[in-house]
Amino acid sequence: MAQVSIQDSEIDIVIGAVQSDLTSFMEEWRPIFSRYHLIIVKDPDLKEELKVAGGFNVNVYTKSDIDRVVGSSSSTVLFSGYSCCYFGYLMSRKKYIISVDDDCSLAKDNKGDMIDIVSQHVSNLTTPATPFFFNTLYDPYRKGADFVRGYPFSLRNGVACALSCGLWLNLADYDAPTQALKPGHRNYRYVDAVLTVPARTMMPVSGVNIGFDRELVGPALLPALRLAAEGKFRWETVEDIWCGMCVKVVCDHMGIGVKSGLPYVWREERGDAVESLKKEWEGVKLMEEVVPFFQSLRLSKAAVSAEQCVVEMAAAVKERLGPVDPVFARAADAMVNWIKLWKVAGSQTAVA
Amino acid sequence: MAQVSIQDSEIDIVIGAVQSDLTSFMEEWRPIFSRYHLIIVKDPDLKEELKVAGGFNVNVYTKSDIDRVVGSSSSTVLFSGYSCCYFGYLMSRKKYIISVDDDCSLAKDNKGDMIDIVSQHVSNLTTPATPFFFNTLYDPYRKGADFVRGYPFSLRNGVACALSCGLWLNLADYDAPTQALKPGHRNYRYVDAVLTVPARTMMPVSGVNIGFDRELVGPALLPALRLAAEGKFRWETVEDIWCGMCVKVVCDHMGIGVKSGLPYVWREERGDAVESLKKEWEGVKLMEEVVPFFQSLRLSKAAVSAEQCVVEMAAAVKERLGPVDPVFARAADAMVNWIKLWKVAGSQTAVA
Repeated sequence: MAQVSIQDSEIDIVIGAVQSDLTSFMEEWRPIFSRYHLIIVKDPDLKEELKVAGGFNVNVYTKSDIDRVVGSSSSTVLFSGYSCCYFGYLMSRKKYIISVDDDCSLAKDNKGDMIDIVSQHVSNLTTPATPFFFNTLYDPYRKGADFVRGYPFSLRNGVACALSCGLWLNLADYDAPTQALKPGHRNYRYVDAVLTVPARTMMPVSGVNIGFDRELVGPALLPALRLAAEGKFRWETVEDIWCGMCVKVVCDHMGIGVKSGLPYVWREERGDAVESLKKEWEGVKLMEEVVPFFQSLRLSKAAVSAEQCVVEMAAAVKERLGPVDPVFARAADAMVNWIKLWKVAGSQTAVA
Repeated sequence: MAQVSIQDSEIDIVIGAVQSDLTSFMEEWRPIFSRYHLIIVKDPDLKEELKVAGGFNVNVYTKSDIDRVVGSSSSTVLFSGYSCCYFGYLMSRKKYIISVDDDCSLAKDNKGDMIDIVSQHVSNLTTPATPFFFNTLYDPYRKGADFVRGYPFSLRNGVACALSCGLWLNLADYDAPTQALKPGHRNYRYVDAVLTVPARTMMPVSGVNIGFDRELVGPALLPALRLAAEGKFRWETVEDIWCGMCVKVVCDHMGIGVKSGLPYVWREERGDAVESLKKEWEGVKLMEEVVPFFQSLRLSKAAVSAEQCVVEMAAAVKERLGPVDPVFARAADAMVNWIKLWKVAGSQTAVA
């Protein structure tokens, strides 16, 4: 399985706007993003007018677009806050999506060179993943790397990679308790590696900086788990963590891969972790239920597409987690609704 | 589970001497190794007199010691070539063992500082491992790192780490076919990371540069799989790969961890990969059987110590792999014999 050459036109950059003025964000990213089509989705809760920079090939979606496509005001809650980016995933018609939070800026690598997150995510997605055996020298498909002694030759072709999870310099993606406990804590370690997260290993996918193959797993990138006290800071949310476990289970079931590591973005400070902590973050409690659930979840052979996997997962969520906390029953409903939406809205021509 | 402070006297450095003149090797490592007790085991096939540098606290073992302890000349074959280091593991009475091949020299980190492999292995072994959920920022116990958002709090205490697998700069640990295909290929990427290899994920452990907790898993670091055409080059062997899978299965069964990554050693060229390839390396074929076997191996609850795990594994090897190739039946016998040796020789006072 060799690296595939892909066109710029096969990529959408999706940005969820939780702040109203995106001009400086877009100017910062212009050297990287200007070659690609952008989809910007304004958080439907955001009252101020959205400001975007000129000179981009961009579609902007707002609450009125969401209402029109989703068709019911109760469903628009799915797309509030950081979850607005999922509406962009729904509207995209491209094979690959790169999505980054609007409080991120460009990071530099160890040599001081500006990191092109799009080309790194695409490289991760278009070279094989190796989920069935661990390669100690990390991604064997990176330039200069290879499979180490003892790696079975029958596994060296690898499998398709569906999801690429990037990382963060400066403010890492910690939860509110961790950030509140170490308010001055910053991440400056640039780890020059990409690796395939092994099959059947669960992981906390962060939505801050990801790339994925929409054709392979798009339906599994879904907004479902919404905390009652969820606000407009990443550390108050777990929607992406839930979504990531759904994708990982789908990938494991379908025999495809997830990579983690490069590329890095620089993450700016925003909000006050101690204030967030006062909300008694439900995420701490819920993850104790969520992780064992996904670790033990096995899908049936009848589920052969991402859509079918999600529907089957939603039923298991309702049955096994529903009685634990009403937030899970709502997540299960949201998953079923998402697949309906994906089938209807996802098959229409693009809304411009 | 906090980091434990350990004494220099709890560590043995074990060197298998496959070359007769160790003086330059020992001089090179003097800044790191001189504080510790060394165990040097001379390859019993080596005819020349062994030369070691002065000024070390060292025990040297040769064929006559092996014959005396093992008691039967047919068993000494277990310790020939690179496998001579296992005799050192047997003779050690320390809690931690650090073992490095005699063709390795000191590597430098990204800042140009000399890497202290002992302190890095010990740090890996004395801080918890996290095999039950993947942390995207790698080892959360490293300075400057932490658990990312979504990591269950109940899993943040981690578990004991039993094995630390280091890596290689310059000549990486590839097999003969890979090295022969890319004779000029060298590894210069210093990846500044340590990670826990997830539970139930199999990996190719290299014996070139490792540290382990002898009290926890010593009996599982064993010489067993010996290829018919095995020579005196790492790329011709798989003994350490087999041993590593045994340790990984034991760790998974006992709920303890294995880490991989730092520290690096610099590996020098030795031998001619194309010449080695002419031997038709059996390792390629055997790994196709070995990996699925260990991936599917589950031990019984009755096995609660590393010794018991190995005995149970040996029976499974004999039953399931024995009919495939006689090399596996011999490996199963070697595993049983090793445990007998470990119980007898391992309980005696040190042979000086």
